[in-house]
Amino acid sequence: MISSDICIIGAGPVGLFAVFETGLLKMRCHVVDVLPQVGGQLTEIYPGKPIYDIPGYPKITGEELVGQLMTQIAPFKPSFTLGERVEQVSRQRDETFLLTTSAGTVISARVVVIAGGLGCFEPRKPVIPDLNLYEGNGVAYSVRDPEVFRGHKVVIAGGGDSALDWTLVLAGIADKVTLVHRGNTFRGAPDTASRVQELANAGKLDLIIRAHTTHLTGKGKLNGVGVSLHGGDSLIIPADDFIPLFGLTPRLGPIAEWGLNMDKDAINVNTIDYSTSEERIYAIGDINHYPGKLKLILCGFHEAALMARSAFRFVYPDQRINFKYTTVYGINAF
Amino acid sequence: MISSDICIIGAGPVGLFAVFETGLLKMRCHVVDVLPQVGGQLTEIYPGKPIYDIPGYPKITGEELVGQLMTQIAPFKPSFTLGERVEQVSRQRDETFLLTTSAGTVISARVVVIAGGLGCFEPRKPVIPDLNLYEGNGVAYSVRDPEVFRGHKVVIAGGGDSALDWTLVLAGIADKVTLVHRGNTFRGAPDTASRVQELANAGKLDLIIRAHTTHLTGKGKLNGVGVSLHGGDSLIIPADDFIPLFGLTPRLGPIAEWGLNMDKDAINVNTIDYSTSEERIYAIGDINHYPGKLKLILCGFHEAALMARSAFRFVYPDQRINFKYTTVYGINAF
Repeated sequence: MISSDICIIGAGPVGLFAVFETGLLKMRCHVVDVLPQVGGQLTEIYPGKPIYDIPGYPKITGEELVGQLMTQIAPFKPSFTLGERVEQVSRQRDETFLLTTSAGTVISARVVVIAGGLGCFEPRKPVIPDLNLYEGNGVAYSVRDPEVFRGHKVVIAGGGDSALDWTLVLAGIADKVTLVHRGNTFRGAPDTASRVQELANAGKLDLIIRAHTTHLTGKGKLNGVGVSLHGGDSLIIPADDFIPLFGLTPRLGPIAEWGLNMDKDAINVNTIDYSTSEERIYAIGDINHYPGKLKLILCGFHEAALMARSAFRFVYPDQRINFKYTTVYGINAF
Repeated sequence: MISSDICIIGAGPVGLFAVFETGLLKMRCHVVDVLPQVGGQLTEIYPGKPIYDIPGYPKITGEELVGQLMTQIAPFKPSFTLGERVEQVSRQRDETFLLTTSAGTVISARVVVIAGGLGCFEPRKPVIPDLNLYEGNGVAYSVRDPEVFRGHKVVIAGGGDSALDWTLVLAGIADKVTLVHRGNTFRGAPDTASRVQELANAGKLDLIIRAHTTHLTGKGKLNGVGVSLHGGDSLIIPADDFIPLFGLTPRLGPIAEWGLNMDKDAINVNTIDYSTSEERIYAIGDINHYPGKLKLILCGFHEAALMARSAFRFVYPDQRINFKYTTVYGINAF
């Protein structure tokens, strides 16, 4: 069992900065995230895109910001459990919580800070009968190792960057690649779209536009993808693999079942300390809601600071906070 | 008359970032500060000291942070009135405010944002009878041009960095320098204190410790400083100049007279939009108060963001806010 003063759920920028603010007050943190790396949306959704509204950074990429935050919190030696989702939070008699992850990891902490962003990002799935039955048997929502598809017949669906990029990559590896897209223009980068069109013109891949996938064929294992052309015809494309790439969509997951006062997909908090309806459980960043709430990273930083001052009394019930400015006293690390 | 959508009082980090957040929503700002340069406390009090709690900056000096913020807000072309203090704010019939500065500059704006920090920083003055009568006639609270003191007899009082630093500088310029200090150890940098002690040992300056200044002599123009030694004796030191250097202390100034709901030296605001008791007047950063308030720069950044969304309806009463993330759309400058 892992034991810490505070368990932070979510390793996005706000969860990471919460390590800093609680660390200043001598509280230790364990951070859990369902993603295999730190950074949350910044790393998963837009690692290379510039952000312009981090105060003091006229321009910084998500990846750079995460790097800076990791350096900033390093003195406080946070521990991490990555690639696991917190499934259960149960309050113990000794005023601690026990948190259990999807992989069975158990974490004990006095305070829980939910910095879960928009929740877990899951692939947006097309509406196709029995799609889930083929998952792992020919249907995949991401490409981890392109080599898996060597020699295969692959159907990709989608019109964004992800669909275009993987079409180009797999065209050089798979036996045959077919890209099916509803529209007749692509949302992805124009340059990538042109290269896909060129390969299609050269017969290196099949491009079917103004069409959508309707059903899957094959017993147990996928062997074909049904496609309906918007002109009226339909056909079945022989396929070993079907990869629908329609982007990611956030899902709150088990947090919604923890009995917290919620409003739609957000956890209601007060603005004094960003505490939830459950004592010792806080919610900061995109996952919380209060009057005036803005889902900005910089707002989550503020929420983390006020949360830390409030959480202190649960971790050190007999002490008073000795508020110090870092510019005067610097940082006392662990 | 200067006309703008928003008049920001205070060019510290929070006032500067308010230019960014309002600029994102197409509102133009005019910024006024009593100091002759931007940066507020960061530039005036600790320009070179590192700050450790700006999110995403493991370490940054006040001066560097101000430089970064100025770069960040440059696209929004703010205008500045520096070295003048806003004395009056009066509400006009057409739903604008007229602000008048100490130098008579008049600014018209729809919204006023007070980002005044801890107020105006003024020298902390020793309690000495008639001290103010000698101001400008031998008494100064800062050294702007050391050459002014060439050939003078100077008495400096204080035990911090400022007193030690100027003692060293003036020892090489003035005819004679006497440093009077209450304690027998110095609060300033140990290295500087040693150098002062060495010069005193070498007879290059007079050092009087465990003593304090009691009164001033001279008709109209200063000619001596009375000193009481804690051992019991007292003496009068001939002096052309007396420079008490006891640091700076914040004063709220005229803001306290504007009829805003206040609590001690802070302006009460609500946490939905950081508005004050007066419609169209907001207060952000160290100058405001609300339950849970922390006087941190990063909290002021958050307050600026929420203020901007609220101020929008007064600047553009017929428009709805079209909330966009900078990482998706970048910045539309003026």
